Amino acid sequence: MNITGQSLIGGASSASNGVVFQAFDPALGKAIAPDFHSAEEGDIERACALAQAAFDTYRATGQEVRARFLENIAQQLLELGDELIVRAMVESGLPRVRLEGERGRTVGQLLLFAAVLREGSWNDARIDPALPERQPLPRVDLRMRNIAIGPVAVFGASNFPLAFSVAGGDTAAALAAGCPVVVKAHPAHPGTSELVGRAMQKAVAASNFPAGVFSLLTGMGNALGTALVSNPHIQAVGFTGSRQGGLALMKVAAARPQPIPVYAEMSSINPIYLLPAALAARAETIAKNFVDSVTLGAGQFCTNPGLVLGLAGADFERFAQLAGQELTRRGTATMLTAGIHAAYQQGVATLAAQVDVRQLGQGAIADGCQAMPALYATSAAAFLSNPVLSAEVFGPVSLLVACANETELLQVTEHLEGQLTATLQMDEDDKPLARRLLPLLERKVGRILANGFPTGVEVSHAMVHGGPFPATSDSRSTSVGSAAISRFLRPVSYQNLAQDLLPEALQDANPLTIWQRRDGQLSK
Amino acid sequence: MNITGQSLIGGASSASNGVVFQAFDPALGKAIAPDFHSAEEGDIERACALAQAAFDTYRATGQEVRARFLENIAQQLLELGDELIVRAMVESGLPRVRLEGERGRTVGQLLLFAAVLREGSWNDARIDPALPERQPLPRVDLRMRNIAIGPVAVFGASNFPLAFSVAGGDTAAALAAGCPVVVKAHPAHPGTSELVGRAMQKAVAASNFPAGVFSLLTGMGNALGTALVSNPHIQAVGFTGSRQGGLALMKVAAARPQPIPVYAEMSSINPIYLLPAALAARAETIAKNFVDSVTLGAGQFCTNPGLVLGLAGADFERFAQLAGQELTRRGTATMLTAGIHAAYQQGVATLAAQVDVRQLGQGAIADGCQAMPALYATSAAAFLSNPVLSAEVFGPVSLLVACANETELLQVTEHLEGQLTATLQMDEDDKPLARRLLPLLERKVGRILANGFPTGVEVSHAMVHGGPFPATSDSRSTSVGSAAISRFLRPVSYQNLAQDLLPEALQDANPLTIWQRRDGQLSK
Repeated sequence: MNITGQSLIGGASSASNGVVFQAFDPALGKAIAPDFHSAEEGDIERACALAQAAFDTYRATGQEVRARFLENIAQQLLELGDELIVRAMVESGLPRVRLEGERGRTVGQLLLFAAVLREGSWNDARIDPALPERQPLPRVDLRMRNIAIGPVAVFGASNFPLAFSVAGGDTAAALAAGCPVVVKAHPAHPGTSELVGRAMQKAVAASNFPAGVFSLLTGMGNALGTALVSNPHIQAVGFTGSRQGGLALMKVAAARPQPIPVYAEMSSINPIYLLPAALAARAETIAKNFVDSVTLGAGQFCTNPGLVLGLAGADFERFAQLAGQELTRRGTATMLTAGIHAAYQQGVATLAAQVDVRQLGQGAIADGCQAMPALYATSAAAFLSNPVLSAEVFGPVSLLVACANETELLQVTEHLEGQLTATLQMDEDDKPLARRLLPLLERKVGRILANGFPTGVEVSHAMVHGGPFPATSDSRSTSVGSAAISRFLRPVSYQNLAQDLLPEALQDANPLTIWQRRDGQLSK
Repeated sequence: MNITGQSLIGGASSASNGVVFQAFDPALGKAIAPDFHSAEEGDIERACALAQAAFDTYRATGQEVRARFLENIAQQLLELGDELIVRAMVESGLPRVRLEGERGRTVGQLLLFAAVLREGSWNDARIDPALPERQPLPRVDLRMRNIAIGPVAVFGASNFPLAFSVAGGDTAAALAAGCPVVVKAHPAHPGTSELVGRAMQKAVAASNFPAGVFSLLTGMGNALGTALVSNPHIQAVGFTGSRQGGLALMKVAAARPQPIPVYAEMSSINPIYLLPAALAARAETIAKNFVDSVTLGAGQFCTNPGLVLGLAGADFERFAQLAGQELTRRGTATMLTAGIHAAYQQGVATLAAQVDVRQLGQGAIADGCQAMPALYATSAAAFLSNPVLSAEVFGPVSLLVACANETELLQVTEHLEGQLTATLQMDEDDKPLARRLLPLLERKVGRILANGFPTGVEVSHAMVHGGPFPATSDSRSTSVGSAAISRFLRPVSYQNLAQDLLPEALQDANPLTIWQRRDGQLSK
């Protein structure tokens, strides 16, 4: 498939002649053809207006029709074949096996939402039948269901060119909910984005939907994103990226004449707790697996474990030594972009320069866009008093913090900002301490793990990839898993409407055979 | 019970000596004893810190324990007896029958949430069991449930001194969810608030909960509310009031270092559609019932029908005449506060002074805090071009808009801001037009009614009392009905946790006997 370098506005390509930019191969350190033309104001307005024009038609399609549409997108993605993988490899520096896996995950997400649509609980269908004899006042027939919130702006993430990008989780959730989507492609992988975007255009056309169900805007700089979130047709925003970027979009959304929800997944250091019994029993294994997790994908995961907490003592020292040695044996890996690489180097240098921070190990010397893994240690006192030590450094680096005792461990936990995850390395004898930590961790994070590592996010029904601010902008939601559909829904009630005016989800005959909540009790 | 005029901080009364104010009897136009002392900064901080300190203990109570607590609050409310009703009558100008009904509704809300707790779907319990044999990667055990979001600030509303106030819907929903609550009493009914607050203190004590589960702050002016929403312990806000007030709180919440959700229910003119067949068949009945709805409770309902839309012609003219005559026969009624009365008079005067607006009728001449009902008419062209005509005037006034044809009716509908409700007066022959209107109305409102009137909001499972901005700040939620519990919840995932560390809602044995979603399928 030919990459033209243009935005995709509804079913067509933009003919705009906006600022030219190119993709960049971080492994070779050079620009890649072809030229891309940044979307201009007219492109943004046209994409959003088409999305709005498509909205009522698209959301009125049945859940079976939308399920098939998602399945067709998955099919179109697969039919892009190796061209997609190769382009994504060049643009991201990520290896083939990772990108093939990510394609599988992206396809899996689309299929999961197809299944969610057919199961139908997403409607939250509720029926309170009329009670004409009720005293002192009769009750009228009242029914409720969820509908799509409106056109959604989705920002592609740099670190998942497929799974959190054009046809990624937010797009799949929004389309499932019945929302047209306008994607802002991440400028680090514009070719990958265009290939996926064209696959999506095909799927929209094959379903005979209005073309405005999907558009893709390409471009550099912040102005495009600001204009997109400001557009009055847009009713919700999905974003995965930096804290700075997420905060900026939250401000734009809150300043609109009509404020809209922003789901920004931003910043997390994902603490690992080394509880004493587990550490005494298997420091070597934990150290090795921990270093695997820190260095996986050059550390470029939202769930990268950037903080390790434990109780000071011989076992903790031993773990620090083992992890430092293990990490020192690791090679370098190409980072996604020159900007991310520069920020990583800056972040590590800043960390290393803090008072009371010592290095435990570092990987092979790196050049170009290669990241050198690194591991540091500090005291709880330093961690508590120096906010720099709590800041996320995006890449293969982590910080060990030794706490004097359980009280200090709890104190450091209470001090933490909101996180995506927290992980307990624990054995049976650690349960009393785990029980003290769990209530705090529930307040601080979206996912609590035992004896695993936070990298590797399952796409399923029970996944929460979210958490309190600043991990995300909205702790009430998840960006991964089937529960993500609810972020793009809102409830509507129907009072005393005739059966033939009611949506199928709320009809007494229950033609969709979904769960309905009747007078508060589920049945189908 | 003695009204002391002090804020209630946890289990105690404040001893602060803040700015003194008094309640005001709008019917007699005079202040009422005793003096109230505005809460001071120290009160706010103490109330919020106690709420935070109570949070982990309170949210860990079982759903049965919290259900009994809500039932006990209801019991304590009833035990206040006539003293509560009499004080509320004097402070609000509302008649006995209305306040007795509102007490019943308030008690009903508390009991509804007790039932919701016991049913257990609020947990949204999900279990994705481990799949150790899965290829290419095994799946770990993953479970999800909802937990309370944190301490909640609730703002009492002027127009429902019981049902949307200290022990009102937001308080009941937040307490059910497991959130401690800090209420800001509405200064129009501080004595009513204190009576209810002391009843709640009793219920907290009887349950042996930490006293910080509930506090009540009393005071005049905006500074108290701003300080409360700014307090770092507060994690969500429930508000019912003016657009100006809601927008101000949204700004404060968005500007915090950690932004938090605000559920503000603000502004709605609740259009009534007079579809042609219904209007031809029963203009008299509709006119009478419409005027009943406009003038009910001096028009002081969020769901008051402030706009009537129909197709120009003889039937519409006849309706206008009938409604004008009917309204002219209606008496006056005392409004809640002098401020609301002044705003109503100003609003009606502004409306009457607009170009192309004519009066159809007005009620008896009023004095003091009495509202004179009024009815006006204008053209669709004027309505579309003059934003003043879309503004809510809180009180017993409505505006009829004649549209030239169905296209113009749809155009006016598209022009509307977000609303709580829209109502279709319709007969069988109106169904084709209703089908054209419904998709637009779904986008514009939270509840669509046929052949009723929007005043009178049922408290049940299928109620949505919400809607797109500016009806509310967050269309994803409702402030009335059992679905309101979800506004104070957030999901947390547990990965690979031992059964005895998991919350009961997620244990395989399902000791709560609630619905669990296992691999996406509900069972219990």
